[in-house]
Amino acid sequence: MDRRTFLKTAGAAAVAAAGAAPAVHAGGRRLWRMVTAWPPGMPILQTGAEGFARRVSELTGGRLTIQVFAGGELIPPLEVFDAVSQGTVQCGHGAAYYWAGKEPAFQWFTSVPFGLNGQGMNTWLYEGGGLELWEKVYAPYNLVPRPCGNTGVQMGGWFNREIRRLADFKGLKMRIPGLGGRVFARAGGTVVLLPGGEIYTSLERGVIDATEWVGPYHDMRMGFHRIAKYYYGPGWHEPGSTLELIVHRPAYEALPADMKAAVDAAAAEANLRMLAEFEARNAEALAAIRKEGKVAVRTFPADLLEALRKLSNETLEEEAGKNPVTRKVHAAFTAFRRRWRAWEELSEGAYYRSLL
Amino acid sequence: MDRRTFLKTAGAAAVAAAGAAPAVHAGGRRLWRMVTAWPPGMPILQTGAEGFARRVSELTGGRLTIQVFAGGELIPPLEVFDAVSQGTVQCGHGAAYYWAGKEPAFQWFTSVPFGLNGQGMNTWLYEGGGLELWEKVYAPYNLVPRPCGNTGVQMGGWFNREIRRLADFKGLKMRIPGLGGRVFARAGGTVVLLPGGEIYTSLERGVIDATEWVGPYHDMRMGFHRIAKYYYGPGWHEPGSTLELIVHRPAYEALPADMKAAVDAAAAEANLRMLAEFEARNAEALAAIRKEGKVAVRTFPADLLEALRKLSNETLEEEAGKNPVTRKVHAAFTAFRRRWRAWEELSEGAYYRSLL
Repeated sequence: MDRRTFLKTAGAAAVAAAGAAPAVHAGGRRLWRMVTAWPPGMPILQTGAEGFARRVSELTGGRLTIQVFAGGELIPPLEVFDAVSQGTVQCGHGAAYYWAGKEPAFQWFTSVPFGLNGQGMNTWLYEGGGLELWEKVYAPYNLVPRPCGNTGVQMGGWFNREIRRLADFKGLKMRIPGLGGRVFARAGGTVVLLPGGEIYTSLERGVIDATEWVGPYHDMRMGFHRIAKYYYGPGWHEPGSTLELIVHRPAYEALPADMKAAVDAAAAEANLRMLAEFEARNAEALAAIRKEGKVAVRTFPADLLEALRKLSNETLEEEAGKNPVTRKVHAAFTAFRRRWRAWEELSEGAYYRSLL
Repeated sequence: MDRRTFLKTAGAAAVAAAGAAPAVHAGGRRLWRMVTAWPPGMPILQTGAEGFARRVSELTGGRLTIQVFAGGELIPPLEVFDAVSQGTVQCGHGAAYYWAGKEPAFQWFTSVPFGLNGQGMNTWLYEGGGLELWEKVYAPYNLVPRPCGNTGVQMGGWFNREIRRLADFKGLKMRIPGLGGRVFARAGGTVVLLPGGEIYTSLERGVIDATEWVGPYHDMRMGFHRIAKYYYGPGWHEPGSTLELIVHRPAYEALPADMKAAVDAAAAEANLRMLAEFEARNAEALAAIRKEGKVAVRTFPADLLEALRKLSNETLEEEAGKNPVTRKVHAAFTAFRRRWRAWEELSEGAYYRSLL
């Protein structure tokens, strides 16, 4: 998924209307504004951001109220980072890799191909030094980041032909943005970037041969199961995307200790609950897709995944070479992942093997 | 792990000293007492319960303060459930399966052999109807339960001989409590129940041939890596044990909305953070155990796990037959797990296969 999707529909005129953030302190009460990278009403993502805001209000007895604006309602989705960085609004919800144009290192704080799954991201961020690193990398932008949601393992995508080996990607036109797209191109595929609203028609008409989106629940809402022949897992390119809360540093620092705790605890709760929601809704949607029986649901062959993993490592090394910050983040992430994998092999990995 | 361990050292005299819970409302401030099933200072578990209490205090600006007592400091660890149920104290921290003697159904809210991993438990509890069911099952005891921590996949145990097939369990004397022990006995093993303080010496002297405990981090603190020959994963008998916060219902209901939110949000945050802590410390400890090089770290053979899975299913069916409540909980859990597994096979399971 990417947010170019929403740029087209976002009302740029609304930017002017946003203006500087009002410092509302009537009777000690604060009113914050939050902008998100999601379309209005988008389940789990936008509703999750709204749930976070509601929880902060509950925790503070309404003393800190956060008014939430979906992408385009106040500012365009791809301007969330700048709006919060500049203090136009106090906080935002999105994903760090949307702002990779500013700093490639950001991508590691969302998800990278063959990186960490949701549980791994949480372990790295909270207990492996990841969040401290993220805070340092966001500090020059006047932003405080908090993990605030996770998609879980996404899906590999919808294809109009069977995928047996890496060579089957050759010449395939797929809508797959970001680092995943770079790996796909390295495998001989052709990356096509399309706004969300044009994917369905493009796939239906054969303008593209394949597309990825999120997981069964969000994908089904796009209608892909009605027009694609194959649905492949796992989403090797996004194995557990962390969503972010970003707070304008001066606004965060001006909070009394109890409100700071409310923002932090509500973000952690949203982080946990959104992953549970993704998992539950995806399991239900997958069952529904299978019940309809029109799509062949498949797992990518092991050899193909192994080949993609090698290409992913090359791509990440290349990307990490872009600047010292990215190199540092990549090195920290990779060192953590090595130790984590050794443990997962004996625990989660071995357990899944015994169960599935 | 079980809590019989601590019964022996717990000062039973302290029970009398506990008395009825004082309703402290000086200036709107409330002082709660929390008792736990953990030894004083036990990392992640006791420190996690203390972290929960600290967070509630921060969130409420000290208006709700929770004083935490480790197992035996105020009441014995195995009396936590009764103390909170009767309102001797306002809340407690432990694990539902410690109270299985009261109601076998409780076990499903912690972990059952070949049940759900941590992520699966969270999905079931928050988004699959599990927590509502748990609330109903605890209602007759005047308790409000909240998931408040997860151990992740535990380890299968320490053995003084190699385990190649199910027949190798025959006659083996192992310290393994609960449903896991029932499965082990069904496989021909001999279950030995020992308090925590006696396990090390028993294993060293050959009184037992094997023992399970928690995961690499806690196991290493017990010193098993110095005396056992083999260390096996995964912990098929406890694939993701949910820890519980229990609150005396009248105390919970008497809270104003913001304090209720503080208790709930802090419990969710502790649930997330403790799993991350378990994962990080276990990964580090496993690396340390391997570095010492004295123990053979192994994965149970696939055939053995498959055989144990069948025996586990039989054991759970038998257990579920004990009463209508247990039957209902087992049925709900099993229906959820079926759909969840179909999704995990395509997502987490397939991803781990590609990575490890």
